[in-house]
Amino acid sequence: MIGIFDSGLGGLTVVKEILNKLPQYKIIYFGDTARTPYGTKSAETVTRYAIENTKFLLEKGAKIIVVACHSVSSTAIPVLKELFSDIPFFEVVTPSMKKALKLTKNKKIGVIGTRTTIESKIYDRLFASVDPKIKLYSQPAPLLVPLIEEGWLKKPETRRIVKKYLIPLKMRGIDTLILGCTHYPLIKKIIQEKAGKRIKLVDPSEEIALEIKNFIEINPELAKDLVPDGEPEIFVSDITPNFEKIAQLFLGRKITLKKINLE
Amino acid sequence: MIGIFDSGLGGLTVVKEILNKLPQYKIIYFGDTARTPYGTKSAETVTRYAIENTKFLLEKGAKIIVVACHSVSSTAIPVLKELFSDIPFFEVVTPSMKKALKLTKNKKIGVIGTRTTIESKIYDRLFASVDPKIKLYSQPAPLLVPLIEEGWLKKPETRRIVKKYLIPLKMRGIDTLILGCTHYPLIKKIIQEKAGKRIKLVDPSEEIALEIKNFIEINPELAKDLVPDGEPEIFVSDITPNFEKIAQLFLGRKITLKKINLE
Repeated sequence: MIGIFDSGLGGLTVVKEILNKLPQYKIIYFGDTARTPYGTKSAETVTRYAIENTKFLLEKGAKIIVVACHSVSSTAIPVLKELFSDIPFFEVVTPSMKKALKLTKNKKIGVIGTRTTIESKIYDRLFASVDPKIKLYSQPAPLLVPLIEEGWLKKPETRRIVKKYLIPLKMRGIDTLILGCTHYPLIKKIIQEKAGKRIKLVDPSEEIALEIKNFIEINPELAKDLVPDGEPEIFVSDITPNFEKIAQLFLGRKITLKKINLE
Repeated sequence: MIGIFDSGLGGLTVVKEILNKLPQYKIIYFGDTARTPYGTKSAETVTRYAIENTKFLLEKGAKIIVVACHSVSSTAIPVLKELFSDIPFFEVVTPSMKKALKLTKNKKIGVIGTRTTIESKIYDRLFASVDPKIKLYSQPAPLLVPLIEEGWLKKPETRRIVKKYLIPLKMRGIDTLILGCTHYPLIKKIIQEKAGKRIKLVDPSEEIALEIKNFIEINPELAKDLVPDGEPEIFVSDITPNFEKIAQLFLGRKITLKKINLE
């Protein structure tokens, strides 16, 4: 079983991609909708939540853990790997970094994300460690998550705000833009339109799904441990009618949410 | 001691008004910044959080409890009053309702708030119980909280979105508009500008502070229990640099936040 967690429902874009690329394995997802968003919270709090979420998925039988949340990926991974040392962890940041490195020609890369992700400087550190010549330009874009969760996917206000966030990055001449939040693939078209054709986008959901696929291929013994087949199970820490709407929007199909209280 | 809690920092607009009107009493505030926002969560989850927050304030010595959160005010008050039956509770919804009743001439009243507040239909029920001739028009305005917390208090995007939210209410011919969220007083000017001069605004922070002042005046024995003087103490369940900035914005002065873990 592949276990995936996120601060809320954004990680369902990752579920969708994994279902596309690895339809043979069962997925269990936990979205911490009672405590969402993580993006505005401190690293300490985010780490505490990440540990609880991991424990839940392992108890449910997950054999690998996918951290679909950028805030967790950029702060809590070392602690998780130490606490659960026999479990393979996948996070959303590194695969995007690798893809951006492949795509860029002028070595000028942009990244948009929540405030926590950007302020963690995780992308800065990653790029500096693999290629010091990369120039990384970061832009916090904290209003995009609420706009997307409102379903304002095509509204002029969303277009305007996307445009505003991208101006400083375009002025720097980036040729590659990392969507540093799992919500953003839902407005990829608008982001591409406002970024212009010259800029290539990196979608974290696609990259992490590819990374998992490759890992399973080179570790065939793992494939046996992953329960084959079965509908994905989606657990959340809180349910509202709006969450059900958002889940459908993200996953692209109707799904039953199950409520679980971790506290 | 006057105890006040909110899902986050918005309730500091209430603290500011109480400090204006009742500077002689000590205030203790709890903002649940680790689990904010409540506005998107279910009534069950919001009630559970409200009970924990109330217990914390009572342990700290609060003699009256002010619920500065509209989501809690509109869902959890009956449970709180039953569980803590010897404590006077104040909430933000009823005082606004009373003020709107006084102000309206054509009996057409509008209210804007988070999705949870509007969907709770608390204002509908309250107005129906006091004057069935009142026509209440509600508009969820969920993007205003993130815009305000971003500090986009005067940005054109904020103006546009406020305008968009108010159009349906203006078309109904309301003459009074309730700001159904403690964040909204920070953009009162824009709201007034987009509503037009004909529409009178009801600010929940002002009304709840007046209600508490009146209650203490007619219950002088309570005044003895309220520790006089002393700087307000502001507790939060999570601290980030951005929360400190927002707290200052809301309270209108620099303040030290103290972190407390309720879970």
